[in-house]
Amino acid sequence: MNLHQLMRDLREENGSKIVLLVADGLGGLPLTLSGKTELETARTPNLDAMAREGVSGLTIPVLPGITPGSGPGHLGLFGYDPLEFQIGRGILEALGINFQVGPRDVATRGNFCTVDGKGLITDRRAGRPATQRCVEMCKKLSTIKVPGVEVFVEPVREHRFVVVFRGDNLGDAVNDTDPQAIGVAPLHAVGEDAEAQNTARAVNHFTTEAARVLKQDAPTNMVTLRGFARHPKIASMQEIYGLRAACIAVYPMYKGLARLVGMDVLEGPTTLAEQVDTLKKIWNDYDFFFLHYKYTDSTGEDGDFAAKVEKIELLDLEVPRIRAQNPDVLIVTGDHSTPSKMRSHSWHPVPTLLWARMVRPDGVVDFGESSCRRGGLGQFKAKYLMSLAMAHAGRLGKYGA
Amino acid sequence: MNLHQLMRDLREENGSKIVLLVADGLGGLPLTLSGKTELETARTPNLDAMAREGVSGLTIPVLPGITPGSGPGHLGLFGYDPLEFQIGRGILEALGINFQVGPRDVATRGNFCTVDGKGLITDRRAGRPATQRCVEMCKKLSTIKVPGVEVFVEPVREHRFVVVFRGDNLGDAVNDTDPQAIGVAPLHAVGEDAEAQNTARAVNHFTTEAARVLKQDAPTNMVTLRGFARHPKIASMQEIYGLRAACIAVYPMYKGLARLVGMDVLEGPTTLAEQVDTLKKIWNDYDFFFLHYKYTDSTGEDGDFAAKVEKIELLDLEVPRIRAQNPDVLIVTGDHSTPSKMRSHSWHPVPTLLWARMVRPDGVVDFGESSCRRGGLGQFKAKYLMSLAMAHAGRLGKYGA
Repeated sequence: MNLHQLMRDLREENGSKIVLLVADGLGGLPLTLSGKTELETARTPNLDAMAREGVSGLTIPVLPGITPGSGPGHLGLFGYDPLEFQIGRGILEALGINFQVGPRDVATRGNFCTVDGKGLITDRRAGRPATQRCVEMCKKLSTIKVPGVEVFVEPVREHRFVVVFRGDNLGDAVNDTDPQAIGVAPLHAVGEDAEAQNTARAVNHFTTEAARVLKQDAPTNMVTLRGFARHPKIASMQEIYGLRAACIAVYPMYKGLARLVGMDVLEGPTTLAEQVDTLKKIWNDYDFFFLHYKYTDSTGEDGDFAAKVEKIELLDLEVPRIRAQNPDVLIVTGDHSTPSKMRSHSWHPVPTLLWARMVRPDGVVDFGESSCRRGGLGQFKAKYLMSLAMAHAGRLGKYGA
Repeated sequence: MNLHQLMRDLREENGSKIVLLVADGLGGLPLTLSGKTELETARTPNLDAMAREGVSGLTIPVLPGITPGSGPGHLGLFGYDPLEFQIGRGILEALGINFQVGPRDVATRGNFCTVDGKGLITDRRAGRPATQRCVEMCKKLSTIKVPGVEVFVEPVREHRFVVVFRGDNLGDAVNDTDPQAIGVAPLHAVGEDAEAQNTARAVNHFTTEAARVLKQDAPTNMVTLRGFARHPKIASMQEIYGLRAACIAVYPMYKGLARLVGMDVLEGPTTLAEQVDTLKKIWNDYDFFFLHYKYTDSTGEDGDFAAKVEKIELLDLEVPRIRAQNPDVLIVTGDHSTPSKMRSHSWHPVPTLLWARMVRPDGVVDFGESSCRRGGLGQFKAKYLMSLAMAHAGRLGKYGA
């Protein structure tokens, strides 16, 4: 009996509402031994009130010491063991731009890069071109024909785009053509098995043609591809939890992750305030609402402690409008830590707060890493967050007689 | 995706140094309800300073309530799930005396014992003979010939020795001949399957001959054998973590365990001070250093609370010399608890301290069982200690995009 089967067997419908507010990269580190983290430094009266009324803890996204990317980090929060469900970057990128990946497709993340006269890479991101240029260059790439394989080239933003190869018997065990270095040429694609070799042939044909088509377009005069991936078989949140689930996110990656687990993605909002507006609008149509807030991660990656503090305070300001909807369960957490001290994702457990009427109070009076360490939820794997949410929503029956 | 595969996939080389200082049987119990444990009683200013700067927790060696032997205890600390990797005692003993066990070998632990005129055991350890006598008796046993099987008899110390049976199709599913009782005869060896029956025949031939050869040598006039084991298939720490790993231990068992996971064993030191001398000497040649300190366990097994306190204080005195090497990660823990109150190994979680630059501080100001319970690492399975060490050493990349 695994976790998902347990959810399928025990779930009950009761009309309750669950809100999962993910502050990306929420967890942090103090800058000095006796200092406070970003979250502890921020003035967060609304989150603190939730901590007093709710129950706190620390989530371990994957396993102790493992730093997750956004994919594994979010899958865990949605209740999918990130070691069991592995999602390639190409799929995430494709889902993020609303490209409907099918069973005959291999998706890959593309980067425009700059090469010199000898074909050696001088800039892996082609000087981060404007998105409009990315759109134009993708139109050029869309003219490329590959024998026996249909090719879709779709812009993402700046130097990033998606390529989907559609055909029969295309595998995804293909190496990245991005050498992750400058001064060398893009790599030749090689397939690990017969099906992947079919894909590799198409890839090499495509990149050779790309070099020709973009020859006059420096700095965007070449491409690299990485993260070749087929669509994974994954049950939806509706199938597992019986929840009509909605995603209210701004950035493509998180919309893609939500689509992957079967959420409806609400398009439109570009700020957290607008996300909450959308939440209010669709409140009656769904049972589960995933709100994603990016800026706690991006400020952490910038190494900007003060900016991360500010972004947390801005998040806090929106909490009352979410609570005004009167959700049955409101969870605030992150998909991983992004300490500004480290300027990167990290393995440190993530502060997590669950508000519901039937929590066992734990005496925690504010929301922060140290308080969460003493919280009633303890330290636990993020994949158990959804069963806790379902329980506190009154949506799980008894296991066994 | 299991833990070892994750390590292989994510590991990165960065020249950092990890020191794992294992104080055997470190965890303890207070003698009275309101008392302190051995570790809490000991004056340990250097460990306390590490606790203030680092992060603490409690390791569960195997599973809650499970008391480990030295083998499972150490395998867990090295990141090998002790329920998955099971090592027979014979193998441990053989590795501990630097006997190179091969694929056609079955190794077993031997004890000299004393039998009366009827062949019934009167002393299971033959009065703990001097090691020199053990050496002489093993020479006698080495004269025994077993048809079709090569036999190696090697002294360990006192009443203990190793026998290795080398031949084709020798299994290790053979019962111990040690009845673990006096007043009875050594047991007949029986094999559970055809290959083990081959071994059992050789064993019974050997013990019958041993009784004859040692007839005049009371109190060392008979042998018992236990822990029949073949060499397990186990990936090295180099293969899993990419670490050049060195063991600096005094006692054979721990050297054997280290060899099993592919560590180089540095011979020579007989005291902790000499172990630290060796550490300094080999510092540039390795990435990972396992230092083993036996006396916290042996004093615990003696039931000598005061002596265990003293041994902990002596350990503390060596900590500054280890820190002077400027390791990137320094861990102090035990392979299990050995409360002097119990005079034995126990299941109680083990105080664990991890010092590194990127820890999340936890407000813990001293090293002890109660403090560790409030520590930032929480209670966690010992098998995750290595992934935490790798993460804090900056040696693990991100999992997933």
